[in-house]
This record gives sequence, structure tokens and C-alpha cells, in this order.
Amino acid sequence: MYETLAVVGATGAVGRIVLEQLQKRNLPFKKLKLLASERSVGKEVRYNGEVIQVELLAPGAFKNVDLVIGSTPDEIAAEFVPYAVQEGAIVVDESGYWRMDPKVPLIIPEVNPEAAEKHEGILASPNCSTTQMVVALAPLHRAARVKRVVVSTYQATSGAGLPGSEELNDSVRSALVGKTHPPKTFQHPIGFNLIPQIGSEKYEGYTSEEMKMVYETQKIFGDNQIQVCPTCVRVPVATGHSESILVETEKPLSVEEATNLFQAFDGITVVDDLSNKRYPMPRDCDGKDDVFVGRIRKDISSSSGIAFWCVSDNLRKGAATNAVQIAELLMKRS
Amino acid sequence: MYETLAVVGATGAVGRIVLEQLQKRNLPFKKLKLLASERSVGKEVRYNGEVIQVELLAPGAFKNVDLVIGSTPDEIAAEFVPYAVQEGAIVVDESGYWRMDPKVPLIIPEVNPEAAEKHEGILASPNCSTTQMVVALAPLHRAARVKRVVVSTYQATSGAGLPGSEELNDSVRSALVGKTHPPKTFQHPIGFNLIPQIGSEKYEGYTSEEMKMVYETQKIFGDNQIQVCPTCVRVPVATGHSESILVETEKPLSVEEATNLFQAFDGITVVDDLSNKRYPMPRDCDGKDDVFVGRIRKDISSSSGIAFWCVSDNLRKGAATNAVQIAELLMKRS
Repeated sequence: MYETLAVVGATGAVGRIVLEQLQKRNLPFKKLKLLASERSVGKEVRYNGEVIQVELLAPGAFKNVDLVIGSTPDEIAAEFVPYAVQEGAIVVDESGYWRMDPKVPLIIPEVNPEAAEKHEGILASPNCSTTQMVVALAPLHRAARVKRVVVSTYQATSGAGLPGSEELNDSVRSALVGKTHPPKTFQHPIGFNLIPQIGSEKYEGYTSEEMKMVYETQKIFGDNQIQVCPTCVRVPVATGHSESILVETEKPLSVEEATNLFQAFDGITVVDDLSNKRYPMPRDCDGKDDVFVGRIRKDISSSSGIAFWCVSDNLRKGAATNAVQIAELLMKRS
Repeated sequence: MYETLAVVGATGAVGRIVLEQLQKRNLPFKKLKLLASERSVGKEVRYNGEVIQVELLAPGAFKNVDLVIGSTPDEIAAEFVPYAVQEGAIVVDESGYWRMDPKVPLIIPEVNPEAAEKHEGILASPNCSTTQMVVALAPLHRAARVKRVVVSTYQATSGAGLPGSEELNDSVRSALVGKTHPPKTFQHPIGFNLIPQIGSEKYEGYTSEEMKMVYETQKIFGDNQIQVCPTCVRVPVATGHSESILVETEKPLSVEEATNLFQAFDGITVVDDLSNKRYPMPRDCDGKDDVFVGRIRKDISSSSGIAFWCVSDNLRKGAATNAVQIAELLMKRS
């Protein structure tokens, strides 16, 4: 049913991993089309031993395309997704533009695969910081119903694409010789620094990145009663978002119950042995597809809370891997 | 009354700033004695244009000393503080060893100066991560009573002294050329990484650093009802601890009330203008004595919470500055 697959933004930080995941997971399509902006047109990309030329993203490009995975900034997705759908393709979009549209299901395949059954041509993949948190919360929510989440993030620079990673290196190199690299991608120098702002001001002092964690979590769980208080912070780490999460559940959970629930859930790896210095860290999760959970403990400030630490490769489960999993889900169903 | 002041650990990361603060604040003592371990004996340190030789920290060294500021590891403080007191000195100790002793007041001069009135020769300065949080909480506690605090820290490497700062640089330099610098001071490589462990396992999955934030906060406020859930994380930042804090108060506070309370409090500087990208960051707070607060907003997950972001130079208010302020408080009273 899905003979031709198109990847939009194939030469970007996430697009490259989309291609890697398509090969690794061996998705059953026959033809691959790579689309990008003018700047990348004509570039040659190797895929399964074949060389594919990048073509221009423009109306008409989706005429014979069945399924699209889009890894582009919001403004590009706002433009191309409607004509891709009009030309007959189904689009799995990683941008933030379509996620909160009531007609667009927001999917994490391990969490709400059923939501993919009904769509009007567009399916969205959540924001990186939301995805890993919701994967981690899912087994607790199923068993004990999540009421409230307090989360502080430690987000890697690759969340801002290849320019973010380059700016981290440049900023760190400058700082090491006592100089300041002028920031372009981030609001301030990121080397040896923290920036407590991701995105722009959105709602009552919260940033757009923070409000994504509120709205997207409620939408994926289909539960507007879940309260989330997020603080999103950029840290001088190249890849791997980390999150310090406190979750309050309706039914209290013991640490043992929570740990067992995490362990039994598809897509979560528990690394939790403080006395042997074992817990998830960005350097160990880089290049891996799972969501890693550790430092699981009783919230000592409430009667029904669990605190834990969660790390995942933001370019993988937070972006490319989840989108490819959504495509896989659609293909299996067709 | 305090004619001779001794600084123990004068050549360490914090000791150097103690000397700088003593000069800057122009404390009224007549003679300065510098004490350290054998390794540093004979070193010459400039103070107010005078050259002072470092002497050996050993029994007998405090015979004519009135007041001591100690910046040493716990195990050194455990040993020297008793004989310093026995030899007639009053000790302001920055280590963690004496803080929770019921006979030892734990002081932040802006918060609980009255506790310094009664002591048996030892006064303690709190842990860096506690100090900046308690300073920030103090005006809210006075106005609306703090019930619960959820805090995630982003702690700089200089919290582990000069070796910590050196290891950060070495680790980052190695990572930039694709190598791994073997960690000595920290549990894992810190360059471009995060380590969700500071200290050792202490209580039900919490680390010693985390439990300091619980016990010390309760002790300083003299209120065991205050519940604190901390997560302490080491980040690749040289100087300046940051904290994402959510506080629930008995009496609800508006953002405006909280901001006014912060602004009116001695020792707090509010930097809070998200739309103009202004908020506290480690790079801006390095070398400053205040506690910086920003991103002040309503907790959107509860009815009585305020969320904010707090940064302070961990070597200053978190250590040297607070200790010198305690010494100053004693001198004013004598």
C-alpha cells in the first residue's frame, strides 16, 4: 500500500537519522524520495547501497508519494504539508506546527497507537522533551493515573539542529581561551553556561517549549486533568535531553511498583543503582533509541509522588525514531 | 574583641575568596593568620599589601586566635574544629561536618542572624546548594509560610574545589578531540555530560547532597514541617549553581507579590524579563555575591505554587561570602 516513501529534510540532523532508522527497521516500501530546500537539491545520499539525489521540495513533488516523513522547521511544515496531503500523500510530521490541530493525532506508538487509526492525512510526532517524558509516565499513568507532573529539563544543543551543535563547540572552544563566541542559534553563549529559555514567551511567563510539555502531554494521554509545571533549560551537552521529573499519581505507587512498571514497558530501559554510580547520563544514551530511567525514589515531600531522572537521545526517540515508528505503525495497518 | 582572625584552608578555591571578602568588607581585626595542611605551609599570600606565610594547621595553632573561618573538607573540620575551640577560638565552619549538630547554629545572616547569639564556639555555614535556595525562599516564607519545595539543581564543577574546575576543562578538551579524560574528582566524565549524583547514597535513594537541602533548610528556618524534594545534578559549568524551584506556600502568593518580596530582600537581585531574554545565568553571576532570581511565574500545576529560577556563585554566597558575613555578624555583636 505504501510503495513510495518521501523524506522531507533528509539532510538535516534528524533527517539523517530518519534514513538510518528506515534501513535499520527495514520498512516495507519500494521507492524512496528525498526532498529538501533549494540549498540541498542535487546532493547525493546513500541508502541501502543505492545513491539517491535530493529533489526540490515544491508543489507537485508528492504526486506519486504514498507516505511522507517530514523533519523540517515549523514554517516549512506549515507550507508543504497541505499540498503533500492534497497530492495524495499521508504525512508524518515532526514539526511543532500541526501537533495541536484537533484533526491531527499526536502519536507515540508505545503510548497511544490507537489514535493513529483516525486521521485526515496528517499525523504528528511530539516535541522531543514531551516524548521522553510521556513514554516514562505512560506505565505509571496506566497503573495509577497521573495527576500532576513537575519537570525540570536539561536539554542538549542538538535540539536546535546541526547549527546548535556547532555553536556549542564554538562557544566552548572560545571560552577555553577566555573569549566569547557571539551566539546565533541560542539567545546567549552556551559554552560553560545554562540558558533557562527554550523558545519564546508563550503563556504567563512560560516559554513555548514549556507549554508544549503541558498541552502535548494532555493530548497524547487524552486527559486534560493532568497538570504539568515545566521548566526548560538549555545545557552545554551535545546530544541527549535529561529531565528531573516528580509525578503525583491518584493511586500511590511504591518505588518497587514504579520500577517494575518502568521495566515492563516497551521502550524504557531502567538504569538505577546509585550505590554503584549507575543512572542514565547523556553520554551513555547518545545514539540509542530507548528512554532511560533511573534515580527512582519516593517523593519525600508528598504522600503520593515518585521522583525520577529520565534521559533520551533527543534526535532519536525524541524525533527520528518516533516518526519512523509512526510510519511503521501505518504500514503494518495497511 | 576579635583581634586575631585565622583562615583555615586559605589556599583553596573558597579560601582565596574568603581573603578577598575580608578585604572588601574591611572586617575589623588586627592580625590575620593563615593555616593549611603541610602541602601549603610556607606559601606566601598577599593580604592588604602585606605578605603572610601559610602556617601549619595543627594543635597549638589557635592559641592566640579569637575567630576562625574554616574552608576545609569535612574530615579536616572534624579534626581541627574541636582543638581550635579548646584553644579558645570561635570557629565559623564551612564544611558539612558540624552543620547538623544540635549545639551548632547554622547561619545565613540575612535569614536567621538571631541563631548566632547562642553557640558553644562553633557556628556553621550551610551547603552551597542550600544557601542560595534558602535566601530565595526566606522572603516568601516570612510572608506566606513555605510548605513544600521541589528543587532540581544544576551544580557547577567548582563545587568540588579547584580539582573539579580542572577536571571540567580537561574533560571538555578531551571530548573536543574525541577522547575521554578519565574522571578522578567526579564519578563520570563531566565534559558535555550531566551526572545526576552529588555525594554518596544517603537516604532512600537520595544522595548526601540532596539530604543536606532537606535537613539544612528545616534547621535554618527552624521548621521541620517544610517538605523538600531535591534532585542534585552536576553540570558542565565552571562556576555558579542554578536551581529550578517550585515552592508551595500556605497562603497563596501572586507572581507580583512574590516578585516584590524577592526584590525587597537583602541579598537577592531579581533579573526577570523573559521577552527581552533576561534571566539569571551562571556566566552573569560568576564573581557576584548576591542570589539571583528570575523566571518567576505561577505554578500552573497547583493552586498555591510559585515556580522560579535561582542562580548564585557557589564559591561566594554559597561558601566564602556567607562565612565572612557570619564572622562580620559576630564582630558587630561583640
